[in-house]
Amino acid sequence: MLDLARPRATITTPAAAAVFTMVLTQGPVSRVEIARRTGLSSAAVTKAARPFIEAGYLAELAATERTGPGAGRPASPLAVRPDREYFLGVKITHEELIGVVTDLRSEVVASAHRPLPSTAPETVAAELAALTGDLLGRSPAYRERCRCLGLAVSGDVDRATGLVRYSPFLSWHDVPLGELATGATGLAVTVENDVKALTVAEHWFGEGVGTSSFALVTIGLGIGCAVVVDDRLVTGARGVAGEIGHVPVGGDGPPCHCGGRGCVEAIAGIPAVLHAARRALGEPELTLDGAIAAARAGDPAAREVFARAGTALGRAMAAMANLIGPERIVVSGDLPGLAAYELLEQHLRQSFTQQAFGAAADCLLVLRPRPFEQWARGAAAVAIQTLFTLQER
Amino acid sequence: MLDLARPRATITTPAAAAVFTMVLTQGPVSRVEIARRTGLSSAAVTKAARPFIEAGYLAELAATERTGPGAGRPASPLAVRPDREYFLGVKITHEELIGVVTDLRSEVVASAHRPLPSTAPETVAAELAALTGDLLGRSPAYRERCRCLGLAVSGDVDRATGLVRYSPFLSWHDVPLGELATGATGLAVTVENDVKALTVAEHWFGEGVGTSSFALVTIGLGIGCAVVVDDRLVTGARGVAGEIGHVPVGGDGPPCHCGGRGCVEAIAGIPAVLHAARRALGEPELTLDGAIAAARAGDPAAREVFARAGTALGRAMAAMANLIGPERIVVSGDLPGLAAYELLEQHLRQSFTQQAFGAAADCLLVLRPRPFEQWARGAAAVAIQTLFTLQER
Repeated sequence: MLDLARPRATITTPAAAAVFTMVLTQGPVSRVEIARRTGLSSAAVTKAARPFIEAGYLAELAATERTGPGAGRPASPLAVRPDREYFLGVKITHEELIGVVTDLRSEVVASAHRPLPSTAPETVAAELAALTGDLLGRSPAYRERCRCLGLAVSGDVDRATGLVRYSPFLSWHDVPLGELATGATGLAVTVENDVKALTVAEHWFGEGVGTSSFALVTIGLGIGCAVVVDDRLVTGARGVAGEIGHVPVGGDGPPCHCGGRGCVEAIAGIPAVLHAARRALGEPELTLDGAIAAARAGDPAAREVFARAGTALGRAMAAMANLIGPERIVVSGDLPGLAAYELLEQHLRQSFTQQAFGAAADCLLVLRPRPFEQWARGAAAVAIQTLFTLQER
Repeated sequence: MLDLARPRATITTPAAAAVFTMVLTQGPVSRVEIARRTGLSSAAVTKAARPFIEAGYLAELAATERTGPGAGRPASPLAVRPDREYFLGVKITHEELIGVVTDLRSEVVASAHRPLPSTAPETVAAELAALTGDLLGRSPAYRERCRCLGLAVSGDVDRATGLVRYSPFLSWHDVPLGELATGATGLAVTVENDVKALTVAEHWFGEGVGTSSFALVTIGLGIGCAVVVDDRLVTGARGVAGEIGHVPVGGDGPPCHCGGRGCVEAIAGIPAVLHAARRALGEPELTLDGAIAAARAGDPAAREVFARAGTALGRAMAAMANLIGPERIVVSGDLPGLAAYELLEQHLRQSFTQQAFGAAADCLLVLRPRPFEQWARGAAAVAIQTLFTLQER
């Protein structure tokens, strides 16, 4: 029986963090295997796992088979109990809130949208309270066993304090979103940049599982990116990192809104692609869907626009691979539908392979569209990560 | 009295590594301050420091002043005893060995060159033995208190095993240099890529001290680079990282030997600069010194060659700053003399500032020529680092 009266397991030692995170992201896994992968002793693994078993977060599966020759005892793998706790995640855009409830394994069990009448911080906080109330009201289990809310916002976010320093799409400067949301919802709130949140979800529960270096690139109004090195998100000494959109792959042009030249974003961001397609086809009212349709129908000028965008993205990703050498790169984002990715893919892969240095060309590239709801799932994954990471001073 | 009969202090715990490294790289520093910076308890700091004091590596300085209001005991800062142990470092080029002896603080106390009759691995090992014998023979202190040798080689090096996988300038494939050098010299040998070795020296004893993210760029036949994130050298999932020379900043050209296009190395590497200068001035026999002299004398075509090289370097460094956000970048290398750096500097800084995104533009750039001997000092620094780092499994 799951019972909230039981104390919640919390992370108080590096060993507890290592053991629980391994079972959460790579389980079911035996204690012997955990010991091997973490370098901890068997006794330390058992000691670290115990409070999580007692609090209902981990369960021992039935022993199935002996592991390897001479293994004395059959291995009883440890697995998470996904319904032990639920997590809320909300992506905040300038026009709506997209919310999900996930279980402990980051599987989405409920979702909802809610339009925003304005982006005034107090309004957003009130709408957040209404949205989370709606979602939690859908099951007694959510209401009883959900205490953590993750929020994903584009822009410059200080996760440690929950402060949104700057978010251009929301027109926010120094908004204490964490504080406002805690006040409005009564939940424990973590705020993170949206691309970083998506990266956390991929690293713990998606394509990045088991890798220690990993990157995610998103194509949208801007070109976003976050990088994981040695299992940690790279944050940059001055808060700037992962700005792959401003890697200058275009030589002396085109100019970019950032003041630079030849930036990937100025070639492959959605506004740049749309602008180029309108010019190439001589249709000032062309939509992105229209540009995609024209390219799919074989219009050479439209195809060339996507080819140039794909080449720019491939070059920038090669620059990243040459500098950092991630094991995998996931490319995703807000392009409408699979078709747009297909138009980019060949050129992206070709220029990546041409420009990646030596073995860096073997870096695995994964391209796929991602429904908008996944941004909210990323926010929930950040709440999970916050709960189960040893907090630094 | 220093006495080799005393056991050498070795690193057996993360706390020992943290405490000793902090005193070594940032000392003198009080135990209270070490505890504050490392997050260890005072008791843990005292316990970790004791074996190093007993073995003569650390000494307590005389207590000087009380630290802060209400401080009960005067602080006795800990400092390293630089002459407790000496370290050999050798840079191996295709034509000579450059060797140094440094003390524990990485100060060069002796140096020597030795031409190489060939780059055959056995010949190199024999010449290494002769060179190190020469250097150690210069003082009884060196002979008594030097047991570690660092070797720096350009190319692909596996530091863990001492294997040089590939070094184009030496025409080496899979040479077990660590083993050969240990056999020939009887010393404990660490082999490292030369740019990484220089980066270790800067990170522990130079411009990088106190930073946790840091990069070094070297200008030479190629453009080299190594990156430190979270106090660790980035190695790349497939052994490729820091290849800033192959960041494509030139748009569609020029072609590079790597198969890519627009690589920094194809614009700003010494051969590319010389080639461009010869064409621009119409002098097929022009030397690099000649090109530098022409630019210094105001020849516009020659100046333009250096301007383009500086711009390409600045853009690539901005790409790195945007992706990783290092606290500082040191630019150095094999260009002859200060004049060449002056020709590059203005354009490099200007294009860096233009292309760096937001606060990344505040990254400190340090440009300076570096005598060749410093590569050997880097090799010795790697030997120091190996001795005082907790070895991972």
